[in-house]
Amino acid sequence: MSLFRNLSRISPYSSSSKSHTLINTIITNRFHGPLSTFLSHFATATATQASDYNLAPHVGLGPTKAHEKARVVVLGTGWAGSRLMKGLDPSIYDIVCVSPRNHMVFTPLLASTCVGTLEFRSVAEPIARIQPAISTEPGSYFFLANCTSIDTDHHMVHCETVTEGEQTLDPWKFTISYDKLVIALGAQPTTFGIHGVYEHAIFLREVHHAQEIRRKLLLNLMLSDVPGIAKEEKQRLLHCVVVGGGPTGVEFSGELSDFIMRDVRQRYSHVKDYIHVTLIEANEILSSFDDRLRHYATKQLTKSGVHLVRGIVKDVQEKKIILNDGTEVPYGLLVWSTGVGPSPFVHSLDLPKSPGGRIGIDEWLRVPSVQDVFAIGDCSGFVESTGRPVLPALAQVAERQGKYLAALLNKIGRDNGSRANSIRDMDFGDPFVYKHLGSMATIGSYKALVDLRQSKEAKGLSLAGFLSWFVWRSAYLTRVVSWRNRFYVAINWATTFVFGRDISRI
Amino acid sequence: MSLFRNLSRISPYSSSSKSHTLINTIITNRFHGPLSTFLSHFATATATQASDYNLAPHVGLGPTKAHEKARVVVLGTGWAGSRLMKGLDPSIYDIVCVSPRNHMVFTPLLASTCVGTLEFRSVAEPIARIQPAISTEPGSYFFLANCTSIDTDHHMVHCETVTEGEQTLDPWKFTISYDKLVIALGAQPTTFGIHGVYEHAIFLREVHHAQEIRRKLLLNLMLSDVPGIAKEEKQRLLHCVVVGGGPTGVEFSGELSDFIMRDVRQRYSHVKDYIHVTLIEANEILSSFDDRLRHYATKQLTKSGVHLVRGIVKDVQEKKIILNDGTEVPYGLLVWSTGVGPSPFVHSLDLPKSPGGRIGIDEWLRVPSVQDVFAIGDCSGFVESTGRPVLPALAQVAERQGKYLAALLNKIGRDNGSRANSIRDMDFGDPFVYKHLGSMATIGSYKALVDLRQSKEAKGLSLAGFLSWFVWRSAYLTRVVSWRNRFYVAINWATTFVFGRDISRI
Repeated sequence: MSLFRNLSRISPYSSSSKSHTLINTIITNRFHGPLSTFLSHFATATATQASDYNLAPHVGLGPTKAHEKARVVVLGTGWAGSRLMKGLDPSIYDIVCVSPRNHMVFTPLLASTCVGTLEFRSVAEPIARIQPAISTEPGSYFFLANCTSIDTDHHMVHCETVTEGEQTLDPWKFTISYDKLVIALGAQPTTFGIHGVYEHAIFLREVHHAQEIRRKLLLNLMLSDVPGIAKEEKQRLLHCVVVGGGPTGVEFSGELSDFIMRDVRQRYSHVKDYIHVTLIEANEILSSFDDRLRHYATKQLTKSGVHLVRGIVKDVQEKKIILNDGTEVPYGLLVWSTGVGPSPFVHSLDLPKSPGGRIGIDEWLRVPSVQDVFAIGDCSGFVESTGRPVLPALAQVAERQGKYLAALLNKIGRDNGSRANSIRDMDFGDPFVYKHLGSMATIGSYKALVDLRQSKEAKGLSLAGFLSWFVWRSAYLTRVVSWRNRFYVAINWATTFVFGRDISRI
Repeated sequence: MSLFRNLSRISPYSSSSKSHTLINTIITNRFHGPLSTFLSHFATATATQASDYNLAPHVGLGPTKAHEKARVVVLGTGWAGSRLMKGLDPSIYDIVCVSPRNHMVFTPLLASTCVGTLEFRSVAEPIARIQPAISTEPGSYFFLANCTSIDTDHHMVHCETVTEGEQTLDPWKFTISYDKLVIALGAQPTTFGIHGVYEHAIFLREVHHAQEIRRKLLLNLMLSDVPGIAKEEKQRLLHCVVVGGGPTGVEFSGELSDFIMRDVRQRYSHVKDYIHVTLIEANEILSSFDDRLRHYATKQLTKSGVHLVRGIVKDVQEKKIILNDGTEVPYGLLVWSTGVGPSPFVHSLDLPKSPGGRIGIDEWLRVPSVQDVFAIGDCSGFVESTGRPVLPALAQVAERQGKYLAALLNKIGRDNGSRANSIRDMDFGDPFVYKHLGSMATIGSYKALVDLRQSKEAKGLSLAGFLSWFVWRSAYLTRVVSWRNRFYVAINWATTFVFGRDISRI
């Protein structure tokens, strides 16, 4: 009988006594009973048209009631949104997160995953691990969806599900009422309107980008070894071009050259002389770093075989890019990392804007002129009236803002301001102040740059070389969000050191 | 100057003295030189049409010459082919492997990767790690390609590259001459001609299958939590149906139920009561195992919430399958594992066949009536005249055959028979004899079955329960091919135990 209780507990059909009997039949008969009646009850249930619920009015989460917790709706699962959710007090708020991905990406280590130094999963943190309340509190949710519009008058966001990969379901719309709304939607890669970038280049912002780069790199290495390929095609296939000399572009180039120097030479010895990395930048590489560090990086990268090219890309075609001066650069792999700008969705929002078109915020990260709406991370910038500059689109800015806002919202909640339209003349405490902790970038060959100056003009410590690399690794290892991934990052580094990088194309 | 030497060594342009000068210009000018000349030389090179080499006659590897090593061509990178390559002596033979994947899959652990108990990369071994000569010996190669036909008269195979994922290249054909040919192409899933299986079901034979299952499972879990979904659709999305009660189907069902009992309940608490596993089998589950073990498995699976259904599938539709008796079974995830049979390519080969349509072999794994051709693994079977039964399609059969044939080919090589048409009245030594070591299958909840009898009728030890599970894990851990993956499998198991399974959908 305990067997039966156990089963009925996890069965979705346990509500009807009829299905109890049927499950019992299965158990007692093992494989010998007529099961059609049991299964046909299931079939009847799905006779309901899947599209019916598209027509249902007011589908979604309505305004919170007095006996429920107030609801914070968070749009986005990047550095800002994730850090915010981590800090929110689930005893004060129900947290509802809307995002097309269920994890945060530890972006500074993403470049390492493209060549197998780290595993993809080691740099992805599920939101449920960052804030467990999301999956355990009855009123907290993660919704795999995109926000399509924000209705600040009615304290409501409109969303549409992301069903990519599930052919049997069409996306559907729903709404969520909020007590507090935090917009943390990030930014999108800039392409300067250059033709062909979206079609032919790969960005490096999501795990699936890194997966695509790795698959393509390994494919090109293998194809260039097959008899019958012309020498020129081989050179093209194995020419990896990186556009953009910021930290991401430089770190990726460094990782690639490490991969070539250590792993390709050993494991693709037939084609090792054909593989080649070019980094194209319109200005200086690593422009935010100290001059001395920049020169060091230039020297090191060149020494590792990375060709540094100063040029402006005019057009991106299937097999080559065209520079402004007419030069044609054939490529097999093209990675685009020229910085980020506001997304069309941010553009479309009828909210105050900062210089540069981001969502405008005041010193407390509130969106002025509307109630209960906050914006953090790359999608937000101080409005002109604050007299503050728009902060750079950096993980550390986003993270610091998320942390600050979590504390602020918790304080507001404790001061009875958690409900919609309940913040009146509350004392918000100290405004958000950003203090730059410095920049780091690895350049391959166990070397890195660490620039601890607060701004480009300030004085302060700057380091380059192996010690910096050690600081870089240690610093990031302690920043990785969960213990599980911290453990895996360390293990991945150790196995890469001992066994080299994995080259299975899976 | 050493900097320059270093660069020119890894540069593909080092053959012309002009490009030396240009690279030198880059180095000395760092970002200030005109680079167009350097890059335009590159551009001219690719002006050659990519399709030109498709027209080139006799593209590929011709017959080996007297001063070269003899060449073994291996078709396939499954258990048989990989074990063979591992055992071949690279000082006697050049090894050329042709396969659409560059790694071997440790299939018994594949089911564990679908739910995150193990990582995908932990069960994939690159061929270059199994046989390093493939990437280091000048005459040994791995070619990412499919064999399209075999010309035994001219000791030659025709191949076509696999360029899936590389839009800028069309597949091209080439040929490889062999001294010895080993066909180890495996088998393909059987669908019994049932309509819709290829379109809607997922097999479980490759890493990309496991990735697809994992992505779909996590997607369905998330979508079923979004407001607006009808209860019936939720039940359907979260209904995981497995067709086929052999070891793969049973192990996958067990892993799924573990995932549900441990991880879904914790991390998808809103939908935990809707998720549900059904295993459909036309006959008995685990039919090759001892009766006692089978009953134990049935009881345990049922206890873990797996519905065992005896039925025959008639039709597979987008959202439901239809059984022979008319029962409709709605599903969100459908995994098909009803055994394997010969592929159309094996059917098409003009070679002797075994009963059941596999490539016929004699006691020494030679294909009778042709010179220098061997076949091993699931694609091969003893011809009737040997009086031996066709061996089951098992990893241990394939592995044992690969090992035996490697030793045989090494012996032939040492006896001066390595060249094409040079085996005459050579003594081949003992024929291949298969001794079944027993079967194992895990059924979830830290339980497994171990059946050490040599055949279904024989007497011998059989175990079920936790101890068996421990034996199962230890046995497979020692069987994993490389130390790297052995280490990762152990680490994955440990972290799954401590932290649970990862649920990022990447």
